[in-house]
Amino acid sequence: MNIDREAVKDTEAVAAAAVTVIGLGSMGSALAAALLDRGHPTTVWNRSPHKAGPLVERGARLASSPGEAVAASALTVVCVLDYESLYAVLDPADGSLAGKVLVNLTSGSPRQAHEAVAWARSHGADYLDGAIMTTPPGVGSAEMMFLYSGSETVFAAHRPTLSALGDPLYLGADPGLASLYDAALLGLMWSTMTGWLHGTALVTAEKTEATAFTPVAIRWLTAVAGFLTTYAPQVDAGHYPGDDATIDVQLAAVDHLIHAAESRGIDNSLPELLKSAMSQARSAGHGADSYASVIEVLRNPAGSAK
Amino acid sequence: MNIDREAVKDTEAVAAAAVTVIGLGSMGSALAAALLDRGHPTTVWNRSPHKAGPLVERGARLASSPGEAVAASALTVVCVLDYESLYAVLDPADGSLAGKVLVNLTSGSPRQAHEAVAWARSHGADYLDGAIMTTPPGVGSAEMMFLYSGSETVFAAHRPTLSALGDPLYLGADPGLASLYDAALLGLMWSTMTGWLHGTALVTAEKTEATAFTPVAIRWLTAVAGFLTTYAPQVDAGHYPGDDATIDVQLAAVDHLIHAAESRGIDNSLPELLKSAMSQARSAGHGADSYASVIEVLRNPAGSAK
Repeated sequence: MNIDREAVKDTEAVAAAAVTVIGLGSMGSALAAALLDRGHPTTVWNRSPHKAGPLVERGARLASSPGEAVAASALTVVCVLDYESLYAVLDPADGSLAGKVLVNLTSGSPRQAHEAVAWARSHGADYLDGAIMTTPPGVGSAEMMFLYSGSETVFAAHRPTLSALGDPLYLGADPGLASLYDAALLGLMWSTMTGWLHGTALVTAEKTEATAFTPVAIRWLTAVAGFLTTYAPQVDAGHYPGDDATIDVQLAAVDHLIHAAESRGIDNSLPELLKSAMSQARSAGHGADSYASVIEVLRNPAGSAK
Repeated sequence: MNIDREAVKDTEAVAAAAVTVIGLGSMGSALAAALLDRGHPTTVWNRSPHKAGPLVERGARLASSPGEAVAASALTVVCVLDYESLYAVLDPADGSLAGKVLVNLTSGSPRQAHEAVAWARSHGADYLDGAIMTTPPGVGSAEMMFLYSGSETVFAAHRPTLSALGDPLYLGADPGLASLYDAALLGLMWSTMTGWLHGTALVTAEKTEATAFTPVAIRWLTAVAGFLTTYAPQVDAGHYPGDDATIDVQLAAVDHLIHAAESRGIDNSLPELLKSAMSQARSAGHGADSYASVIEVLRNPAGSAK
């Protein structure tokens, strides 16, 4: 089966387009399941074919090789362990790739995304890089973000299909942008989760339950999101007026956190790092500026001892 | 003027109660302004009386001494630089304190809150400790949290007045809880803001504006809040099933962030710390557990090199 590009567009306009999913780990399986839920004829392939069992029961077609899988649909979604696995699986499918579209949701770096574009082009395939901003249980929800970068034409043509997986956001023509955002957002997630765990360690040391503290913490994150909205234009302008709260004021407050945690035997590496970032910002002349000025320290780490 | 407790309750039921505000920095001034906005007869005092000017124009009465200020209302809200300033201002007002209620919104530690309860009691005053979870421009908004701890009776009696400042949340009888939550939530804020700034440094290195990245980051925080809701009961249970995403999987992803930031000259202290926390969790046997298991590392820092 080989469908030309215009035919694909027409098909999508009237019915759910055929899709191939390669890689059936917990994330790949969730992607295939979401496509089946939306009525997409779905072909799957996985190195260990037994993982396809539950999907085949729900109507998926199991291909016997990556080449057969790619040949089955105009669009192939790939979600494997890493880029090495991607090439190991698809290089033998060489002959099937020409004229096809690959959407790669494998985690990787911006550099790897750039290399994959060149690799796909050498096989005559279109390529879109993507990042999944949810865990497998969140796949299929319109609230969850899927980030894409690369050809806008390819994105626009397949947007209806990609909408089955989550809310598709197009970031730009640079194919590395989805991976770059992915890395940046995961860093934000780990920072937020670790800050929450540190705070949770603090309050649970005083017989408060994590389930009591967490709704307050989540409500507070809404206020914090408001601060980020205030600070984003400051970052773009390179000017950080400290009208709401200065670095100096916050440096005075961070010691309360450090002492409270220390006296309860809690690791203070994170608050010490935050204090150090604020101290460096003050040393760089930002004492009366907002917290957003800390970005100057992050961008110019030359003066900072690691 | 001296009003007994039942009379205060009756007054509050029919009209806005008289309130005194001591300390007119930008936060104290915002508190007094919010009380005036809601029609509370408001008496103010500040070491530098000229700061009272704009409030007096709006109807506030300027007391000539802390003692006169405290005597003017059943309830006095104090918001000064630190606890030392609190005692310096109120110790000379000794004679006016008996039978009054002090609500202390000065930033401090849980230990300082405990000391202040004993100090207030020795002067015959009731005492409630509080923490303001917003910046001065947010004061007066019902969306913003004000945390209180100490006597539940005092809180319940003055809740209508405290509602003029923001949404009053009562945390418990331990007077240190408001300060403890304050420290924990500020730690969460700094962690989140620094993670956001690191991610912003990353994407702005590729000609993306902070104002383009930030709405995506804020939307992502909503998903992260969902993870916290999943993880809070895991923390309370001391059992961290990694159904959605394991420490092992996240350790593999953190290197993408570190490499992407390194190649763009961005300080990596924060992601290195996060990687170290995850590595320690894995070493402690949590590789197949969720990120919530990192709390075990924070609670038992003995094995960690600082």
